[in-house]
Amino acid sequence: LVTRTIHFGIGAMGAATVAHALERADIQVVGAFDADPAKVGRDLGDVIGLGRVTGVRVADSGGADWPDADVVVHGTSSSLEQVAPQLEAALARGLDVVSICEELSFPWVRRPELAARLDGLARQHGVTLLGTGVNPGFAMDTWPIALTAISRSVESIRVTRVLDASGRRLPLQQKVGAGLTVEQFHEKAATGTFGHIGLLESAMAVAHALRWEPYELEHRLEPVVAQEATASQYFQVAPGQAAGIHETLTLRHGGREVLRLDLTMALGATDPRDEVVVEGDPPLNVVARGGFHGDRSTTGIAINSALLVNALPPGLLTMRDVPPVHWMSARAGVRED
Amino acid sequence: LVTRTIHFGIGAMGAATVAHALERADIQVVGAFDADPAKVGRDLGDVIGLGRVTGVRVADSGGADWPDADVVVHGTSSSLEQVAPQLEAALARGLDVVSICEELSFPWVRRPELAARLDGLARQHGVTLLGTGVNPGFAMDTWPIALTAISRSVESIRVTRVLDASGRRLPLQQKVGAGLTVEQFHEKAATGTFGHIGLLESAMAVAHALRWEPYELEHRLEPVVAQEATASQYFQVAPGQAAGIHETLTLRHGGREVLRLDLTMALGATDPRDEVVVEGDPPLNVVARGGFHGDRSTTGIAINSALLVNALPPGLLTMRDVPPVHWMSARAGVRED
Repeated sequence: LVTRTIHFGIGAMGAATVAHALERADIQVVGAFDADPAKVGRDLGDVIGLGRVTGVRVADSGGADWPDADVVVHGTSSSLEQVAPQLEAALARGLDVVSICEELSFPWVRRPELAARLDGLARQHGVTLLGTGVNPGFAMDTWPIALTAISRSVESIRVTRVLDASGRRLPLQQKVGAGLTVEQFHEKAATGTFGHIGLLESAMAVAHALRWEPYELEHRLEPVVAQEATASQYFQVAPGQAAGIHETLTLRHGGREVLRLDLTMALGATDPRDEVVVEGDPPLNVVARGGFHGDRSTTGIAINSALLVNALPPGLLTMRDVPPVHWMSARAGVRED
Repeated sequence: LVTRTIHFGIGAMGAATVAHALERADIQVVGAFDADPAKVGRDLGDVIGLGRVTGVRVADSGGADWPDADVVVHGTSSSLEQVAPQLEAALARGLDVVSICEELSFPWVRRPELAARLDGLARQHGVTLLGTGVNPGFAMDTWPIALTAISRSVESIRVTRVLDASGRRLPLQQKVGAGLTVEQFHEKAATGTFGHIGLLESAMAVAHALRWEPYELEHRLEPVVAQEATASQYFQVAPGQAAGIHETLTLRHGGREVLRLDLTMALGATDPRDEVVVEGDPPLNVVARGGFHGDRSTTGIAINSALLVNALPPGLLTMRDVPPVHWMSARAGVRED
């Protein structure tokens, strides 16, 4: 059984995802779209630096013929508004779509009309649009939600993700403000274009699942200030400069704090991990030592989701709506009717 | 929204489950069945030592009128063959069923005809039969499977569950051989009625999900020998006596070991935990510190599953076939059509 994929978006994450897809025997990459004129017309292998020709030419989705495929693996932007026309084009062609668009991981509160429109279009064409990803989509939402399967009661949940950005992509290191002065950090933070996208989606997904509605949210973004000199391939951070971000989102329901998402992404961050602490019955304390590697995990979950999506019911779905995605998930976890 | 439950089986786990159900505002207990003549005819509150009258009288399922209900919460025996007539009676009445019967957690290999018959009956009546539980059902199968959502490749998985039996129920402490001499332990182990039921189901579920088929299994059961005197409410264990069991199941596929389930249940076991180590890309190392409490977690997952089951498609399903069960899962995680 081979799943034929079209890769929509050959940016950093899209390139990593298609590189992984090209390694797999159970996937055949049949198409690649990107809007960047510097990529259009070139062989996919050339564009992603594969060192070999793939025979798949990168096209601009607008003008391209769409090859026969089983699923579109989509990742172009965090903004659902921006990507909606791309998703609609795929759905209207009768193609299942998995997308790592952050806002799609829980679109029902912030983008209700768009979500309803995409859901309707998918159902109309009998296909599935699945929002997936690691963060949002897994580490700070689906994973802690699934942990409460065994809970008799949940008083509160604290999810802590600490990521050492040193070995990560340049854009991520830029996104966390490495090497800025504290003053520059705060100026940039004030523009709102800084930090992680998806914390809000994760919080809303957890609150929806655990019925912590209505709620109040409080968001904080502050620099992790380097105590000693630290460096990566791209940045030198002097003591007193920003080494990264520390972002928290707390959610209050019924007069008390029930959820805290706590995210640190910084050069040289100590004790990197993904940790979930549930106060309740039974109390739970789970830690992924070293943490879930953001980029590799994202390509993993995108491909594992792509292998599953053909077996899912039509409509717009999130990771909380579908049977556990897992490695080799193609239909195995789903009863075949 | 209140879910009306019939509790089929008021043994140790059934009693704990119905006690939890009676605490919950979103559940109304409307019936209780048990075959034990010492329980039949008495008020449920009296039978489980609740300290108050519930108004629900324990009945023998054979002769009883079945009250109107939304779901049957079933737990009477580990043997699917033994419980099948009970499950069939419920399904034939058009009732959704969740069951903690260990063999139902993955019945397709060891009990294929029974599984097919139950699946067919459930579909015929448009209802769902869901096999659930913590072990098997979560700790050593669904939970590690779900972790591989982010895996690009999986070379092998090692799941370690270490449980300190000191504070647990007497039957569990007996089941693990606490206080036996090593000789008695081996004699009892040789009868095959000793140790944990479900390790095999967990291994088969993981192998099926991750496509490690065909496979060879190797099972080992040995005593944990007490190094120093240890005790519980029920047992005194002298140095040199058995404090509990250490059970491993290894699964080989493609000429190498790909899965090891490693279970220790012993009085005074150190570092109790549930740990999953995935060799692969990315490598994963997740630990639930202290471990998932077996009894409380089982009642939790049984009730959380009961809240979800009305929203699931008809047929026999396992925890790998359904959206993540979670606390307050009633329909929240499932799109309402």
